[in-house]
Amino acid sequence: MLAVHLEGGGVSVRRVPMPHRPEGFALLRLLLGGICNTDLELQRGYYGFSGTPGHEFVAEVVEADNRALAGKRVAGEINLACTVCDWCRKGLGRHCPHRTVLGIVRHPGAFAEFFTLPEHNLHVLPEGTPLQHAVFVEPLAAACEILDQVSIPHADRVAVLGDGKLGLLIAQVLQVHGCQVHQFGRHPEKLRIAAAVGVATQMAGDRLPTAEYDWVVDATGSAEGLRAAATMVRPRGTVILKSTVHGTVGIDTAPIIVNEITLVGSRCGRMEAALPLLGRMRLDEMIAQRFPLEDAPKAFERAASRGTLKVLLQG
Amino acid sequence: MLAVHLEGGGVSVRRVPMPHRPEGFALLRLLLGGICNTDLELQRGYYGFSGTPGHEFVAEVVEADNRALAGKRVAGEINLACTVCDWCRKGLGRHCPHRTVLGIVRHPGAFAEFFTLPEHNLHVLPEGTPLQHAVFVEPLAAACEILDQVSIPHADRVAVLGDGKLGLLIAQVLQVHGCQVHQFGRHPEKLRIAAAVGVATQMAGDRLPTAEYDWVVDATGSAEGLRAAATMVRPRGTVILKSTVHGTVGIDTAPIIVNEITLVGSRCGRMEAALPLLGRMRLDEMIAQRFPLEDAPKAFERAASRGTLKVLLQG
Repeated sequence: MLAVHLEGGGVSVRRVPMPHRPEGFALLRLLLGGICNTDLELQRGYYGFSGTPGHEFVAEVVEADNRALAGKRVAGEINLACTVCDWCRKGLGRHCPHRTVLGIVRHPGAFAEFFTLPEHNLHVLPEGTPLQHAVFVEPLAAACEILDQVSIPHADRVAVLGDGKLGLLIAQVLQVHGCQVHQFGRHPEKLRIAAAVGVATQMAGDRLPTAEYDWVVDATGSAEGLRAAATMVRPRGTVILKSTVHGTVGIDTAPIIVNEITLVGSRCGRMEAALPLLGRMRLDEMIAQRFPLEDAPKAFERAASRGTLKVLLQG
Repeated sequence: MLAVHLEGGGVSVRRVPMPHRPEGFALLRLLLGGICNTDLELQRGYYGFSGTPGHEFVAEVVEADNRALAGKRVAGEINLACTVCDWCRKGLGRHCPHRTVLGIVRHPGAFAEFFTLPEHNLHVLPEGTPLQHAVFVEPLAAACEILDQVSIPHADRVAVLGDGKLGLLIAQVLQVHGCQVHQFGRHPEKLRIAAAVGVATQMAGDRLPTAEYDWVVDATGSAEGLRAAATMVRPRGTVILKSTVHGTVGIDTAPIIVNEITLVGSRCGRMEAALPLLGRMRLDEMIAQRFPLEDAPKAFERAASRGTLKVLLQG
């Protein structure tokens, strides 16, 4: 079968053996995969990764212990948790210290004709869900995670910094939740996507508001974004850190302490929360281009070019 | 009257006019003042301060609109809030953007024979409260603030980093609250004070526990302390930032996001929460030395010498 392979900064497509299906796992056939910034970071060698990436996917179940799954279209939780530790028993397998992670940590990813995941990781898609929407379930769950971590009252004003893929999903999720979202970005054509669901948008210039929001989400992926968020939040307010910056970020802790600001790191979320929202998001406009799996090198190149939204791989 | 004066790094005691008492304010006579690290930072020129410092105090009311206050011994809230803005109406005058702050921001401090505060800032001390305990009410309120901001379940394990004045108060407050406090410090003689109320103490060496506590309080005042706290906290756990580090601190945000850690800045607190705890703390051992007000230069020198606990000024 064909599988994408990352190594030493390069992207190739290789012919490799079919994966073995362990007990309790499903053998999955890729229908559609999404390239995420994390995939680009894996390519660049962060985390010392080499192997098959891919953790945003829709797939068809080829074979599973549970016969009812065969032929079903599924999305899937990317963390393969041990199921027995304290974290797993609390329903927080996403933090299981023994976990592997699809296409990221010691489990071959979804950018291959076939791959495997534990059956209990799978979410069968509702009939009629368009594949090009379902492929957004994983990043959409990451956006929904914010509402699992902090209780933002309906109708509260929230600032979202950044208009990249994750920023657009976050702004839409919070707007649909009932918040008054104010998104700051650098790309009018991207901000228009969020504006279509009612988000108030603004180009991020040199003058950002000061101490204006009780809630600020930083999805810029930049050290400046985090610093801007700390400035824009009101005393006793909350900044949600939704994007990593590589290396250390210089932060002035004094205003954080004086103004008693809360910073909340936020990562993956529950697909159960994301699935019902698929139909309420503007997702088609977020797709930049589709490539067949064998053109993965071109797809990665396109995804890495500045300002590109979601690039999809067709299985 | 005599008043301490900070300017250009120096500490002097000057003879100055008695303060004017505005309507709604009480004229107070200093009984006992406590030198805080913030006072030492004001002396070193942070915040461009010059004037009379002092915000930890016990005083006697000399004159007030409310006759019932006359002659009473009081502690006092240090933030002079506008009383009418949104923050003030929410009971969070400590964050009032129009506030001045006793001995810190545009209101002459308590290290003088006489000073003023709004009457509604005052807390009359219960009969029989020893002055050398009551002078700790302000920093004790800052320690109590943690429990106003985050809900730490009784019996939860909490790590406190740092065995300075604030670290010792925090460890004691959390232990009395019912937590199992584990304090890490560098001074056996200081750790013994917390140990006397049941805190488990440990010298902070090179090997600190990793991902071990749901709650970690950083009271070290050092960049290393903040980084250590982020390492010691468990995924989804909370780090309370209780001490400022001047300048920017280099923080690796990746583990904060991957492990979904919450950082909470924490500053002043409610004296109502602190007053009932005075009798349950080990405070006498925390007093390093007392000086008469006119010896403030010596008192500041002693307070600034490494490892010194609380230095008091007698009015």
